[in-house]
Amino acid sequence: MKFKVHILGSGSALPTISRNPTAHYVNIQERHLLIDCGEGTQLQLRKSKLKFQKIDHIFISHLHGDHYLGLIGLLSTFNLLGRKKTINIYAPEKLKELLDQHFKASQSYLGYLINFVATAAKISEKIFEDNVFTVHTIPLKHKIPCTGFIIKEKQKLRKLKPAALKKHQIPIALFHQLKMGEDITLNNQRLSNDIFTLDPEKGRSYAFCSDTKYNQEMVPMINNVDLLYHEATFLEDKRDRADKTFHSTAHDAAKIAKLCNAKKLIIGHFSARYNDTSAFEKEAKLIFNNTVAINDGDCYEIDFIK
Amino acid sequence: MKFKVHILGSGSALPTISRNPTAHYVNIQERHLLIDCGEGTQLQLRKSKLKFQKIDHIFISHLHGDHYLGLIGLLSTFNLLGRKKTINIYAPEKLKELLDQHFKASQSYLGYLINFVATAAKISEKIFEDNVFTVHTIPLKHKIPCTGFIIKEKQKLRKLKPAALKKHQIPIALFHQLKMGEDITLNNQRLSNDIFTLDPEKGRSYAFCSDTKYNQEMVPMINNVDLLYHEATFLEDKRDRADKTFHSTAHDAAKIAKLCNAKKLIIGHFSARYNDTSAFEKEAKLIFNNTVAINDGDCYEIDFIK
Repeated sequence: MKFKVHILGSGSALPTISRNPTAHYVNIQERHLLIDCGEGTQLQLRKSKLKFQKIDHIFISHLHGDHYLGLIGLLSTFNLLGRKKTINIYAPEKLKELLDQHFKASQSYLGYLINFVATAAKISEKIFEDNVFTVHTIPLKHKIPCTGFIIKEKQKLRKLKPAALKKHQIPIALFHQLKMGEDITLNNQRLSNDIFTLDPEKGRSYAFCSDTKYNQEMVPMINNVDLLYHEATFLEDKRDRADKTFHSTAHDAAKIAKLCNAKKLIIGHFSARYNDTSAFEKEAKLIFNNTVAINDGDCYEIDFIK
Repeated sequence: MKFKVHILGSGSALPTISRNPTAHYVNIQERHLLIDCGEGTQLQLRKSKLKFQKIDHIFISHLHGDHYLGLIGLLSTFNLLGRKKTINIYAPEKLKELLDQHFKASQSYLGYLINFVATAAKISEKIFEDNVFTVHTIPLKHKIPCTGFIIKEKQKLRKLKPAALKKHQIPIALFHQLKMGEDITLNNQRLSNDIFTLDPEKGRSYAFCSDTKYNQEMVPMINNVDLLYHEATFLEDKRDRADKTFHSTAHDAAKIAKLCNAKKLIIGHFSARYNDTSAFEKEAKLIFNNTVAINDGDCYEIDFIK
């Protein structure tokens, strides 16, 4: 069961030939999400051979151009490709107005509905839930209202042990009870659940911490996350610049990863002034060893913990 | 003296890996203009190694996303690169509001001024003039208000003949009069201008006819143009679709080129449904032989007519 994060853009506000602005595409058990949508995201989707029309949910962290300017073009493309199903957009409220004004100016009429969910910047909220996963916002500290997102896969049902079921001749009607972790009663005999089941895999999680300065307050919301994306616009050599622009360094990102006990840290949103991102990995690894500096086109698979 | 047109985007509303949406970069005697600015234009500028900061004038034909959605990102990039000089934008009035709202939402404060000139869609106007060139709008017939642009290089001064000047010992003080085409008086003798000067090169011209259905009314405005760009979204096999969407076929574009006696026709804005654009050239050449189907990255130089 897939849980993959495709990096469509790993750069910051100044796009370069090799780094587009931020966009991550998430496939969690064939639910398809897009997180942030910088200019050029639709071309990045094409390059990564990802299907536009599978996307059902788009999450926008904040309204700096490098995180949303590709959205209008993408929504137009959905329309040109004949989309009929609703798209769900979770974003700062003001975005709805910007979208409406564009579509009014271009006299475009979409053949599908936009279900717009306004995010709050100051509190963490559950903004989506189905039977597979939930999404909560993570308030971040940036120059303008900005949220991260944590996607948590739901815990699976308990795993049945076929040999034990057969040995005790357990009728199928009782399987669901067992999967739910309950004991069962058969021929007036109470049988303990653990005879018949194994622990399921733990639900996996991905946290996307978009533009933010160092902010320990996010730690309780992302505790034990499997994969943490945290921005690292600068190295420590530009600490002043990071502070001034409400961004983080690789050092900051690694500190957060360590504090929240992440399994793995991926860093991006690199300032265009740096040509070589190996220094970012080096700086972060001093604090948190399992760190990767991302590139456009990368794909990170989140495995079940053994 | 340069007059070059760089094609940054030759596709239409559905961008593909090989064709970005519309944007043309014009260098006329080191005056740098951008015409239309679809999503991704700033990356196309980088790929073509053109200097962002040299651009002083941006012309936007209409407010369909594939003609302007790269503008906000480009203006932000100007700012990040430290631009101080004013940028002149010529576009439908509504664009100003869209820009203002974006910059308000992102709390961005530009370090340079935008001089916004609203274009009228129904009449041709001179919207720019300096000592090198003029720009006039061309009303087009599209689904929403849309203008093309014609850039006309000014006629040069007459060329002096050094040998004749020397022979008659003409003082330098009279050179300007001669260049302006006037006769001169020397030692009470009237001397005809043509003894001392040759005809200058004729001013060159480039017409950009953005999204439009077939529209003969534009012909008087682009008569004898040196280089004509005319959209050709479809082939004649999609005549119904062209009519319905207020676009042209290669056949339509070629008819306009013939009627206005253009020297050369370049066609683009190809619908993404066509993989091979040689059929566009073929269809157009039946009517107007000097036709080229453009590609991203092409550069067309407009030479002086010998």
